Amino acid sequence: MTTSFPMNDGNSAYSYFNNSQRQKELIDASKDMVRDAIIGKLDVEVMLSSSHTFRIIDLGCSIGPNTFHAMQHVVDVVKEKYHNIILEFQVFFSDHVENDFNTLFRSLPIDRSYYASGVPGSFHGRLFPTRSIHFAHSSCAIHWLSKIPKELLDEKSPTWNKGLIHYGTSNIEVVNAYIAQFEKDMEIFFNARAEEIVPGGMMVFISPFSSYIRLVEFFGSSLMDLVNEGKLDESLVDSFNLPMYFPSPQDMTKVVEKNGCFSIEFMELVYPKSKLVDETDAKTFIINLRAVLEGLLINHFGSKIAEEVCARTLLKSEEISTWMKANGGKSRQLFVALKRK
Amino acid sequence: MTTSFPMNDGNSAYSYFNNSQRQKELIDASKDMVRDAIIGKLDVEVMLSSSHTFRIIDLGCSIGPNTFHAMQHVVDVVKEKYHNIILEFQVFFSDHVENDFNTLFRSLPIDRSYYASGVPGSFHGRLFPTRSIHFAHSSCAIHWLSKIPKELLDEKSPTWNKGLIHYGTSNIEVVNAYIAQFEKDMEIFFNARAEEIVPGGMMVFISPFSSYIRLVEFFGSSLMDLVNEGKLDESLVDSFNLPMYFPSPQDMTKVVEKNGCFSIEFMELVYPKSKLVDETDAKTFIINLRAVLEGLLINHFGSKIAEEVCARTLLKSEEISTWMKANGGKSRQLFVALKRK
Repeated sequence: MTTSFPMNDGNSAYSYFNNSQRQKELIDASKDMVRDAIIGKLDVEVMLSSSHTFRIIDLGCSIGPNTFHAMQHVVDVVKEKYHNIILEFQVFFSDHVENDFNTLFRSLPIDRSYYASGVPGSFHGRLFPTRSIHFAHSSCAIHWLSKIPKELLDEKSPTWNKGLIHYGTSNIEVVNAYIAQFEKDMEIFFNARAEEIVPGGMMVFISPFSSYIRLVEFFGSSLMDLVNEGKLDESLVDSFNLPMYFPSPQDMTKVVEKNGCFSIEFMELVYPKSKLVDETDAKTFIINLRAVLEGLLINHFGSKIAEEVCARTLLKSEEISTWMKANGGKSRQLFVALKRK
Repeated sequence: MTTSFPMNDGNSAYSYFNNSQRQKELIDASKDMVRDAIIGKLDVEVMLSSSHTFRIIDLGCSIGPNTFHAMQHVVDVVKEKYHNIILEFQVFFSDHVENDFNTLFRSLPIDRSYYASGVPGSFHGRLFPTRSIHFAHSSCAIHWLSKIPKELLDEKSPTWNKGLIHYGTSNIEVVNAYIAQFEKDMEIFFNARAEEIVPGGMMVFISPFSSYIRLVEFFGSSLMDLVNEGKLDESLVDSFNLPMYFPSPQDMTKVVEKNGCFSIEFMELVYPKSKLVDETDAKTFIINLRAVLEGLLINHFGSKIAEEVCARTLLKSEEISTWMKANGGKSRQLFVALKRK
């Protein structure tokens, strides 16, 4: 089973590069919080002894352009805070080895004020030398599980996720299987970062919450439409589950405290000012989500069904727009700032 | 004008990945010298103060697999020398932004004993933070010039390189233009590395010498064949020049001493045991060289002529084999070990 789920690569119409405005909104909405975390909670003098290189990582960077905005923002705020210290910045863009690093590297901003580097590999494992990182950033990434909870693949179990492609709220067994996988993954994640990040170093997460859970199911309902028309076997949909869990503040607090290596400095649910209201915006959103999900759909159903499902979901833009308007208040994101003890 | 000349990318028949045996021979032939340089001349205790991360860069790494052998060798020898010190290794694979980093990352050895990272950019400029590198390695790369000496592009000048695609020995003006560009490039190269490498840090070069100068001209003679058959305009060949200068020990000594930031620890002309003797081997060699030159040929002549030239040069394998046998003694490579003062 594949355990890596890259965004659509390259620079084409359905690429992540051209379809990641939604993820940009999330980053924009938390810019002030990233700023507050750095200004209020970070102490460079303690972290840097002889060296003057401040090392930043972006975990799950994908292929840009969002990661460039996020990294430059971190650099700018640290520079602003320590304007009297000569610092050099080294940014490590990290994502799975299947990520399209060629596109990432070819799009690096010319006017960047840091040394750029790419690091291939899963963040559910070690990526950097011990105590070498001062600031870790991860946006729209930690909700990716290392794998589908294996209980979901047993047709005879109560965790068989019938008719759905993600956890809803109706089947608590399914929800619990997702939570258990998330907790396991985060323990491994925190143990790796605890080695890599210097004492006093900081880690921020920006993670979509709630509205995403429902929105991905519009792709699920397109799949079920194909089942109802006899064009697709239902067991194939039942056995397809998205490897994502969107943590609540309670989930996050639990995994951080259980691990014990990091202190929680800030945690907040934010309501980004989403511009996604009318039908055109809903279309943009679906194309945006396609750049994230298409690889998974192709992997499980083949490219013909994947194409059909994406096209059909696009036809639901009016329904999605109506749902988004009605649920605008639920379009939240989780911001977390942690510090290495 | 393009200033980056990537090897053929991907993993296909004419890719550099599958056609770099010759470059591997060069690396293999200097393994003992790399070893001697590390064992005899490197002092880790002086370089590493609080950190235990030993940082290695490969400049002009291309897409593998040679760079993996070279980097693992450096790691192994440093580990052997400092077996009583706990060291972690971080390797930065660096090449032009057009290099195929996706292939490089996807071919990283699973059993590597270092943290891997890719750094896009020209080594004729800064790539890393100040004093962050302990060991720099560059094989078959420093002979690449940042650009064609501009004097070669003036049809009315004595440096107009008529009928040739590289410097021979007949036109001293052409040779001097190449040398001047090499000296300019190396000054910029050394100044950048002098900032990046810690005092006591080491840099090794492995560079092909002499035989290459003649061998690339077999591609030149295929171009001239097309000219003589009326299929190609001669001025197009005259204006095409390979951006490479293969330095002699004297050239190298001159640029190192002029720069002044590095001391020469070892310098040697080596005769690698080349297995290239019969016609089949000559064919392998031409396909090997194609992976290096094809991008340049396509860029100047278009893909149709490039294909034709490569095919025609392959037909000269007997002639090339004869020449290689007769000139076996001239198939040399330059090994240089420098230390940051």
